[in-house]
Amino acid sequence: MADSQQPQSTVEIGNNLPVAIIHRLPTFNFSFSWAKDIVNPIEPSDPLYSIHRSSARAVIVLGPSPLTSEHLDQYPSVECIFGTSAGVDHIDLDECRRRNIRVTSAGDAFSEDGADYAIGLLMDVLRLVSASDRFVRAGLWPVKGYYPLGNKLGARRVGIVGLGSIGTLVAKRLEPFGCTIGYTSRTMKPQVPHQFYSTVLDLATNSDALIVCCALTEKTRQVINRDVLTALGKRGIIVNIGRGALVDEKELVKFLVGGELGGAGLDVFENEPDVPKELFTMDNVVLSPHRAITTTGAMEALIQLVIGNLKAFLSNNPLLSEIILHG
Amino acid sequence: MADSQQPQSTVEIGNNLPVAIIHRLPTFNFSFSWAKDIVNPIEPSDPLYSIHRSSARAVIVLGPSPLTSEHLDQYPSVECIFGTSAGVDHIDLDECRRRNIRVTSAGDAFSEDGADYAIGLLMDVLRLVSASDRFVRAGLWPVKGYYPLGNKLGARRVGIVGLGSIGTLVAKRLEPFGCTIGYTSRTMKPQVPHQFYSTVLDLATNSDALIVCCALTEKTRQVINRDVLTALGKRGIIVNIGRGALVDEKELVKFLVGGELGGAGLDVFENEPDVPKELFTMDNVVLSPHRAITTTGAMEALIQLVIGNLKAFLSNNPLLSEIILHG
Repeated sequence: MADSQQPQSTVEIGNNLPVAIIHRLPTFNFSFSWAKDIVNPIEPSDPLYSIHRSSARAVIVLGPSPLTSEHLDQYPSVECIFGTSAGVDHIDLDECRRRNIRVTSAGDAFSEDGADYAIGLLMDVLRLVSASDRFVRAGLWPVKGYYPLGNKLGARRVGIVGLGSIGTLVAKRLEPFGCTIGYTSRTMKPQVPHQFYSTVLDLATNSDALIVCCALTEKTRQVINRDVLTALGKRGIIVNIGRGALVDEKELVKFLVGGELGGAGLDVFENEPDVPKELFTMDNVVLSPHRAITTTGAMEALIQLVIGNLKAFLSNNPLLSEIILHG
Repeated sequence: MADSQQPQSTVEIGNNLPVAIIHRLPTFNFSFSWAKDIVNPIEPSDPLYSIHRSSARAVIVLGPSPLTSEHLDQYPSVECIFGTSAGVDHIDLDECRRRNIRVTSAGDAFSEDGADYAIGLLMDVLRLVSASDRFVRAGLWPVKGYYPLGNKLGARRVGIVGLGSIGTLVAKRLEPFGCTIGYTSRTMKPQVPHQFYSTVLDLATNSDALIVCCALTEKTRQVINRDVLTALGKRGIIVNIGRGALVDEKELVKFLVGGELGGAGLDVFENEPDVPKELFTMDNVVLSPHRAITTTGAMEALIQLVIGNLKAFLSNNPLLSEIILHG
């Protein structure tokens, strides 16, 4: 993230606060100084790590840093994993369940910003905002004249893949634009006024654009496959703010390159930070470096949530954003 | 516009349809073939122009092509000017009033798309969509890591300058994002639930972003001046989808270059297609080549409206989108 603060060594630990192990990818430069009033945060690089890792009851996972069974072996006393991202596919949830370890996520802290960004990407692909900005900056307006027409958002049937906290806010935001909204979800939501489709394929068949914002699980991996892209059709649009692996990326690139899909707004990719080079020259594609939820406001909300979860855990109160681990 | 059809010569005129003079900038390549069932459209380059210009009762103005008093002198019999753009500042309205010539505009045909695009530009400036697309395409993600945080739309106070047909739809679209909305307009609108400010300066003082979507008149020329930009402040944002001359462009560039304004999303400029070069390297600015209203849907709606206006005029019925010319 943007926070340039470097990991800080915990020089003294005589404050009687409990230890929390900080777990992160080395590249994930996000400060945890906000946790210091509640716990003693310790990283593997900290001299105190070897003393405290086996007795630590809490692990804070920064961003989408993978937390595997092998990592968990290092923390035999851990009782709760405090996640800081909306999706928790980077955490081995099956293993946590087996070891009776609780897990929290970013809950709703990112939902509004994620939904906003989905609308931004959809608008950009339809109305060619980034592409025409590029056109102006390249000095082409005086030379080539008017830029090609865009497509009206209101005339579109938009299908939401996953009507969770983000998907619900996407629907709410789309309503005043006059779009026809459909959705698919694990279960139909009777209180939602929009058309439910029981499969993503049915939804794609009845949509001009899909907004992918469901959780990545073994059931949803590559849920946007060749058949779904075919059903969406030559003018169809994919917006993905979920996870790269929700989409069969090779097929998506093939469809876009071959003109078999209308466009795409992609915030996530299969092998981040690698983005398929074939997309770099396409004006009907908007490429975004996994930042749908990264606003200053969302980061503040996240920090408050994790602090709340830590306090709840330490005082044996219900956690604020616990993931239910299915058996 | 995108229509590549060239002006067509009207070879025969024996169909008893009345003549309509087509008035356009030579660079404004927009077909008028849709008018052929109602009138005989004739351009100055047409051999029939010299025969018919002095008796023509109708002039169709394509896009923002200037129509001056001198142009009107060429059409001594004209009774109605059929405009095809939302703003009619390119038409000498005072002169039309003096000559008792009626004028129509694009009415509401573009309002939805204009409002959509304003939201798209605001979202882009706040969330850095175009800038991060540029970052990915330049191959910087694997090298530089995460892109700087954006700003939450919902936390913003958005001021709408001009609550006409576009401004009203901008407000409606902003509501579900959770923004605090204010507006200024010629008169307070009691049925509107948002805060009214009697001056643009007051609105700017109480806003984090201004969306400029009023008509350009002598009263609104450079309504976004130095004082307004100062009131908006260092984190403030200007979105302009109205006309370039609504903003003091020199001051705007100075504020942006000096870091005295947070950002800008600009679809219109003072001397189009010239865009101030100082803005080309700025990531907090989105540059758009006057295309807020150019979608295929809007063009279809416009054509239907002009056809309706022509039919109404020829059958002495009330015009569908007549401009009231104030005396």
